[in-house]
Amino acid sequence: MKKNYENEIQSLLLKMTIEEKVGQLQQCGPSLVGAFDVSFEELVNMVFDGRISKADFQIMMSTAKQDFHEEDLRAGKIGSYNGLNDAKKANELQKIAVTETRLGIPLLFGYDVIHGYLTVTPIPLAESCAWEPELWKKTARISAEEATAGGVHMTFAPMVDVAKDARWGRVSEGAGEDVLLSSIYGAAKVKGFQGDDLTKEDAMVACVKHFTGYGAAEAGKDYNRVDMSMQRLFEEYLPPFEACIKAGARAVMPAFNDINGMPCTVNSWLLTDILRGNWGFDGMTISDANAIAECVTHGIAENLADAAKQAIEAGLDMDMTSNAYSETLAELIANGDVEEQVLDRAVADILRIKFELGLFDRPYRTSEEREKAAMLKPAYRSLAIEAAEKSIVLLKNENVLPLKNGVKLGLVGELANNREEMTGAWAIKADGEDCVSLVDACKAQGINFIYMAEDTVTSEDCDVYVAAIGESKNQSGEAASRASIELPTEQIDLLKRLIETGKPVIAVLFNGRPLAIPWVADNVHAIVEAWHPGVEAGNAILNILFGIINPSAKLTTTFPYSSGQCPVYYAHINTGRPGGKSKFTSKYLDTPLEPVYPFGYGLSYTTFLYSDLQVRKEQEGIRVSVKVRNTGDRDGTEIIQCYIRDIVAKRVQPVKQLVDFTKIPLQAGVESEVDFLVPYQAMGYYDISMNYVIEEGEFEIFVGGNSVDCLSSRFWL
Amino acid sequence: MKKNYENEIQSLLLKMTIEEKVGQLQQCGPSLVGAFDVSFEELVNMVFDGRISKADFQIMMSTAKQDFHEEDLRAGKIGSYNGLNDAKKANELQKIAVTETRLGIPLLFGYDVIHGYLTVTPIPLAESCAWEPELWKKTARISAEEATAGGVHMTFAPMVDVAKDARWGRVSEGAGEDVLLSSIYGAAKVKGFQGDDLTKEDAMVACVKHFTGYGAAEAGKDYNRVDMSMQRLFEEYLPPFEACIKAGARAVMPAFNDINGMPCTVNSWLLTDILRGNWGFDGMTISDANAIAECVTHGIAENLADAAKQAIEAGLDMDMTSNAYSETLAELIANGDVEEQVLDRAVADILRIKFELGLFDRPYRTSEEREKAAMLKPAYRSLAIEAAEKSIVLLKNENVLPLKNGVKLGLVGELANNREEMTGAWAIKADGEDCVSLVDACKAQGINFIYMAEDTVTSEDCDVYVAAIGESKNQSGEAASRASIELPTEQIDLLKRLIETGKPVIAVLFNGRPLAIPWVADNVHAIVEAWHPGVEAGNAILNILFGIINPSAKLTTTFPYSSGQCPVYYAHINTGRPGGKSKFTSKYLDTPLEPVYPFGYGLSYTTFLYSDLQVRKEQEGIRVSVKVRNTGDRDGTEIIQCYIRDIVAKRVQPVKQLVDFTKIPLQAGVESEVDFLVPYQAMGYYDISMNYVIEEGEFEIFVGGNSVDCLSSRFWL
Repeated sequence: MKKNYENEIQSLLLKMTIEEKVGQLQQCGPSLVGAFDVSFEELVNMVFDGRISKADFQIMMSTAKQDFHEEDLRAGKIGSYNGLNDAKKANELQKIAVTETRLGIPLLFGYDVIHGYLTVTPIPLAESCAWEPELWKKTARISAEEATAGGVHMTFAPMVDVAKDARWGRVSEGAGEDVLLSSIYGAAKVKGFQGDDLTKEDAMVACVKHFTGYGAAEAGKDYNRVDMSMQRLFEEYLPPFEACIKAGARAVMPAFNDINGMPCTVNSWLLTDILRGNWGFDGMTISDANAIAECVTHGIAENLADAAKQAIEAGLDMDMTSNAYSETLAELIANGDVEEQVLDRAVADILRIKFELGLFDRPYRTSEEREKAAMLKPAYRSLAIEAAEKSIVLLKNENVLPLKNGVKLGLVGELANNREEMTGAWAIKADGEDCVSLVDACKAQGINFIYMAEDTVTSEDCDVYVAAIGESKNQSGEAASRASIELPTEQIDLLKRLIETGKPVIAVLFNGRPLAIPWVADNVHAIVEAWHPGVEAGNAILNILFGIINPSAKLTTTFPYSSGQCPVYYAHINTGRPGGKSKFTSKYLDTPLEPVYPFGYGLSYTTFLYSDLQVRKEQEGIRVSVKVRNTGDRDGTEIIQCYIRDIVAKRVQPVKQLVDFTKIPLQAGVESEVDFLVPYQAMGYYDISMNYVIEEGEFEIFVGGNSVDCLSSRFWL
Repeated sequence: MKKNYENEIQSLLLKMTIEEKVGQLQQCGPSLVGAFDVSFEELVNMVFDGRISKADFQIMMSTAKQDFHEEDLRAGKIGSYNGLNDAKKANELQKIAVTETRLGIPLLFGYDVIHGYLTVTPIPLAESCAWEPELWKKTARISAEEATAGGVHMTFAPMVDVAKDARWGRVSEGAGEDVLLSSIYGAAKVKGFQGDDLTKEDAMVACVKHFTGYGAAEAGKDYNRVDMSMQRLFEEYLPPFEACIKAGARAVMPAFNDINGMPCTVNSWLLTDILRGNWGFDGMTISDANAIAECVTHGIAENLADAAKQAIEAGLDMDMTSNAYSETLAELIANGDVEEQVLDRAVADILRIKFELGLFDRPYRTSEEREKAAMLKPAYRSLAIEAAEKSIVLLKNENVLPLKNGVKLGLVGELANNREEMTGAWAIKADGEDCVSLVDACKAQGINFIYMAEDTVTSEDCDVYVAAIGESKNQSGEAASRASIELPTEQIDLLKRLIETGKPVIAVLFNGRPLAIPWVADNVHAIVEAWHPGVEAGNAILNILFGIINPSAKLTTTFPYSSGQCPVYYAHINTGRPGGKSKFTSKYLDTPLEPVYPFGYGLSYTTFLYSDLQVRKEQEGIRVSVKVRNTGDRDGTEIIQCYIRDIVAKRVQPVKQLVDFTKIPLQAGVESEVDFLVPYQAMGYYDISMNYVIEEGEFEIFVGGNSVDCLSSRFWL
């Protein structure tokens, strides 16, 4: 049972001044001052634009100083910091809060721990391809252990934005295009981050984001308009958030975008009616960075005060770094424009989290000693390699893989020899030097290889080419939408030159999103989708290439044929003229109907045969069983997927919708029977009056190793 | 005053059997029988696939016979025909209906007259670029004069689907991306088609389509899912339909697509609540081709009978060619599954149109003599050339145009010498041989030119190259979505070869949609957007090229930078981080923020200077005045556009929204003052409770010659 702190909160509130209350809502981002004349934001832009090198940037940063606004802190005007990753500094600031402020209310430290703190694990999109909740939980746990040792109390994760448009840069940060998978992923992450007891020193509050619809940004352009029916919102985008709340997530971050014209930051229907009313959430909400102030730009608020008033009245508790609350709320309350009880409710939400974390009893949850001992432990690296191996998807294999021992590799491509790039987007604490590149791994493991410049490849002596291609880490993530998800011409040209040598060519893809690779799919001999795999990148890839690990991952996102095919996803709803051979069907003139690789797809070094699909009704749902046999000569692991279709409904339904999955090891030659219980409750939809209905009628069940190649069976409900 | 026929309708209904009533709902498409073994649909596919040539197809068709199901007609089982374009046959069938059926109810003949019957005028997207309602009405009028002479009573036009995604093939059939322009366009077309008295022999009923949202097909893929908020539907997609109903349109066709999961064909909210309830429509509705039967495939109906029941109960009167009503309705009524009064209401809607057309008094509205005399009159050709000249948009001109007399043209590109392609999509009655190609026009007008093969261009002797590039007519229109709207490599290569000669290069674009032409925009010397201009194509283009006509058209659709930028449109709503130089703004990493050419854009051979923008409040609205001076040395015509923005609102508003426009001739050196009255009623939006509200606050008015280059002024409401 969760302990109730309402008495403590109310008694504390009684002691607080308006200014102290407002202070609790203020999350402060340390500002930078130092030896340069431009703002930090402009500096970041200069790095991204290539106007200054990353090395120069780091030199400039080392001469800069962070300003923690300690006078404000002493005055009780700061309730939280964002961006700290340093036990010593966190404890220094915490000491000021608890010993030098009038009421001694401890600080809350928030930080972006998205896929690892120092032990960077694969980007979320990659890790989702493991289809393994226990793994998702474990990697979240080690993130929390490291980050809390560094002074962090709360991570702005998991991101559970269902993302169906490969152009959107933040597809890298979530679990792909499926609503069920995103729900299970999010819940596992919440449990991993938070642990079983928030008062433990290594528990880290999960702040679920971005509430909501962010992944449906129009045209895949970050921060863009989101517009959809209420039915679609409730069926395809909200469930992962509800799943995270049910899993115990104690914080929620509204999205930057609007939903149907209402920015989430000031959306009381979302933040109060749905979140607290429907789902009973009693944790805290916190804006995305500067989002409250940006409501003025957005055109929903006349000025900062109006933005603050709308946000707090909508149910937004904490202001991440925009200073809207700190600059305007006290006056709004003094003038009677905002009721003090609205402020009290927001403060209470924040104090509740601080109580739940035990910060009043133990404000210093870490020490420099703990921090020092906590990072990059061997066990963490072991988990990181396991996670990477389970995330790497074998997309194509024309009898090239696994490689035989002793074979001489010709490594090509800058990404084969770049540690930093292995960290992927949003790994802000990571140090690239902790990463093992493919070249590093080859050296360390004594692999027979040569790493060659891209323009000399044809003259080199090797048995097989391994071409590292794809995207750099800054090409996905926040504010990294791409209108073209094709590979650059240079990479295609490189592959052509390699193919011309007559040697087998293996493409190892590093990327934060699905890429449009029809040419690669047709022309190279093998494709290993490595994503951005984290600190153990090179080792994990070698283990896959040489068959030390038999690949088992399956795509959680569709690989489009071209940018112009976006969004394309497996759970599309049917039309009256489904795409086919005939002219007058739903398709493009110039592009194949199907994507290059479908959702759920991924190969193994062995093969699996599905048979004997059985469907029968039970009291709680439909029992689905199937036999799966490992028909190859290697042990392997198969991710078995169960989809459903409601053939006829009063609203048109998806042609296929994932309802369950399981992952089982199968020794060579062995057959196993697996079964799923698909609850009747999962077979419904929202009708035009927004009632969730489960209709009688015909359904179809599909079971298979991906969303296309399935056994199927129909039944009547 | 419209005459009321309710007594006649009721008395006729009393005489009708159920079968006869059902017969009135049946629109029959003549089936083809003849010397080939495949279905007509398959045959069409074979043509589109290139498996048989168009010439062979025509030979096959000439040996085929149409089956008009005359026995069914005699039995009172057919109320309408689709696809007839022949006065003799129409009168023969009509004679059977009125003399051989029990009640002698006349037939209604429907046909797709989209942008001309034989006198093909520019495709609708092109003609919308004239921004001239009077022209739109006139071309609709001549369509009606020809088509009614051919026996047609009703056209399945105008299409008023607002279309913001260039990938969608049917952008060619509508007035572009703007809701106001589409509304004015649709209303003008309705008036032109119908004339002022439906009983006149040359009045043609306008069937407004596709109700609704079809232009928002997801990913620009034809027939695909449409999903949006009610606010967006009411603000951006429904108004053109309402405008057409207000203009008197007597028929409406629901769209193939679903809206938020409810296929429009069976959508009672659309077809009854909105159309008849809110808008007071009392005309007839007719499905799109086979759409009722396709509801089974769509997954909204269990079988044909279920589809028929849902459709008629939703308010769908006539079944276009799917036979769903004719095969199932009588039994549904006999079984009590559908009430007879539901059938009666549908029949009444159809009879009402037949009465309004005066068909009971004069069933034969044409004759072979009239038909023969009605086509391709000189006055029609004059209007066709005027329409084309007013539709052609000058996109770029580096002092190359207008051409001087005597200059020798080097014409390149197949589209310069192809009559058929000039007709554009959905000109099904058109005969390509009636069209004047660019080569034809050059010959006829004695232009000094050479038409050269694409691979011999560099050796030819000419002063300036005119390269005909773009799309063929079958690359836009229905079932012609493209995932890639870029020009084919061959065309770019051709342009490169031309540019290398050092001679000026003018690109003449033929296309049914916006194309992504950033390279062309940067590299050729002039771009003339000719679209698919109709029968007078070549003459109109020459008149523009040689400056006999000063171009005045303005784009009604945004020209994207790339396929991956779709949808991109001027009236996008704001975000909290509008796209800009900074990294963390709403944009793509790899593509410019702006499209290649914005909405409203188009050049002239003269220049216009805007000044002295004045805004003042009046009782009915905001009076906006501006001075526009022709600052060049040629007379010209300018389309002056007035946009508004609601700076702060309770739902985020578009950054710019067209509220009025005017088109004025201006002699060289002359200044004129124009003014607009923007009604307060146009300044509102739908709030989250779907109330239309006009909020007080700050607004901005923009006036200019395109949607980007505007004078602006703010005011408070």
